[in-house]
Order: sequence, then C-alpha cells, then structure tokens
Amino acid sequence: MSYFNNFMLANQAYVALHGEEHLPIRPKTKVAIVTCMDSRLHVAQALGLALGDAHILRNAGGRVTDDMIRSLVISQQQLGTREIVVLHHTDCGAQTFTNPEFHEQLQHDLGVDVSDKDFLPFADIEESVREDMQLLKDSPLIPEDVIINGAVYDVDTGRMTEVK
Amino acid sequence: MSYFNNFMLANQAYVALHGEEHLPIRPKTKVAIVTCMDSRLHVAQALGLALGDAHILRNAGGRVTDDMIRSLVISQQQLGTREIVVLHHTDCGAQTFTNPEFHEQLQHDLGVDVSDKDFLPFADIEESVREDMQLLKDSPLIPEDVIINGAVYDVDTGRMTEVK
Repeated sequence: MSYFNNFMLANQAYVALHGEEHLPIRPKTKVAIVTCMDSRLHVAQALGLALGDAHILRNAGGRVTDDMIRSLVISQQQLGTREIVVLHHTDCGAQTFTNPEFHEQLQHDLGVDVSDKDFLPFADIEESVREDMQLLKDSPLIPEDVIINGAVYDVDTGRMTEVK
Repeated sequence: MSYFNNFMLANQAYVALHGEEHLPIRPKTKVAIVTCMDSRLHVAQALGLALGDAHILRNAGGRVTDDMIRSLVISQQQLGTREIVVLHHTDCGAQTFTNPEFHEQLQHDLGVDVSDKDFLPFADIEESVREDMQLLKDSPLIPEDVIINGAVYDVDTGRMTEVK
C-alpha cells in the first residue's frame, strides 16, 4: 500500500490546469523562505505566493543547518535572492523530544548509535526563530545586505506573527 | 524594500479562509516528500495534498544530505511516516554550475574559501533521483520496509514522471 500512485493521479489533474509556460529560474520576489516540513503548513497558500515567486526551503524545524546554508548560497549567488524569511510554527515535532531520549530510542529501535548527532530540537518557538536569524546574520556566506525577517505560523489558525 | 510585509498581508486574507481546526501532528498519508526549493514547484497543489497530508522537505536540488536524513529520521521515528518520494525537476539551479567554478565565484564575491564544500550540483536529472533513492536505501537510519519512489517534475507543464 503506497500513496505514490495517488499523487501521480492527482498530478494528472493538476497538469490539465497548469498550461504550458516557461517561468524564469530566478524567483520573482528574490525571497527564500526557510521553514519546517510540517504537513499542516502549505507555504505558497499561507503567504500568497504564485508560481515562480520564491524559493521554499524546508527541513525538520526550519533550522539553519550547514545544508540550509548550502541551499541559501545557491539561492542567492546562483539565482539572485536577497531576502530570507525564517518561519517556525506552533505544535512542532522538534518540540516533542530531547537529543538524549531520541538517541536512546534510535539505538533501541534501529540499532544505530547516533549519540554524536544533534537533531536540533527546541523548547521555545520564538527563541528558535531568533537563534536561526542570528545564525544567518553571523554566517560569512550570507551577505550583510540580505534582508532577514522571522515569524511564527499558527497551525490551528493559519496566522503568521512576526518575531522581532 | 522588503516583501515580508506583503506576505504578512496576504496571510491575513489566508487566515480569514483557514478556519480554526487542530489537525494531528502526524501526517495522514505517512509520506515525506523530498524535493527542491525551486519557486516553480508548488508541492501541495502538484501532488494533490490537503493540509495535514504529508511532510514536505526541500533543499537546493532535493538532495539526500545529512540534514535531510536528520529530518527524515524525525519524520519517521517521531511522527510516523513510512514512505518517501524523491522529486527532482527540470531546469534545476543545481544544474547551472560545477563545484570548482562556484568555489572560485564565492572566493571572489564573498571572500570566503569554501573549496572543501560540496554544493551537490548534478548534470542528469534522472540519475540524481536514482542516486538519492539509493542513498536512502543504503542509510542505516532509514528502515528497510520504508517505501521509496522517485519522479521528475517538469516545471513547464507541471507533470510528474516516475523514475525507476
């Protein structure tokens, strides 16, 4: 039982509405959104993005990792973005565990020792946004003039609230 | 000049339509989609996903990195997903450069030496999907019984084509 075929079927219907048009590879707004993988956040709809508007980067928690920096450097230095929005959200999976607990669980369930791996859980959602904004500001790979804003998304109401 | 305030304004309109409902933190289909940050791919629409259906993970290229594995382990072992779709796309920014060229550009433009960093460019889009599916299959952190499929998304037509 797999959902892949359902997605392929839904995609056929999407293609029928899509039309054939080549949009430029560079995002129109020059913005990259850094956010979480959570299933209750549909980024394009929630922020009013049309096709071609903005890069959308998502990992567990919406955290600024080495791989997020890799992606942002490509976004900025290859594809011209000049603004970043860090968007975390309420009721996040990254708030449901601590590293030591999770390490023990993975040792037990998968038989793998990952005790040196930081899964980047956090407790305070606004603090995590501020931390990640600061990591971006401190990175030598993100130019000083890149605009950085942060917000929290409420998965129950759909509302974004700015984090200063 | 920043787009952040535009997104906040568009979000007010979204909130008015959203209603207030608490969906579960665990994705309904138990699927995680691994894909690219590209602005011309709106994942939920293209695959027919409703709010709450699936985790969506996005980096430059939709590549399986250490951070992608971190996110997938949380997705699976904390939040119950059991299936992965690797979705790369045509006209990808990861096809526009090579590591040596990009290292030289970053040294010149940002004054930073990142010559040891792999930005994960690729030449063949189907091959990159196969490579990343194989990385998932080989990872000790991804259980054997997790279903893995791959596809390429055409940014001009919106069509997904399976990669075997």
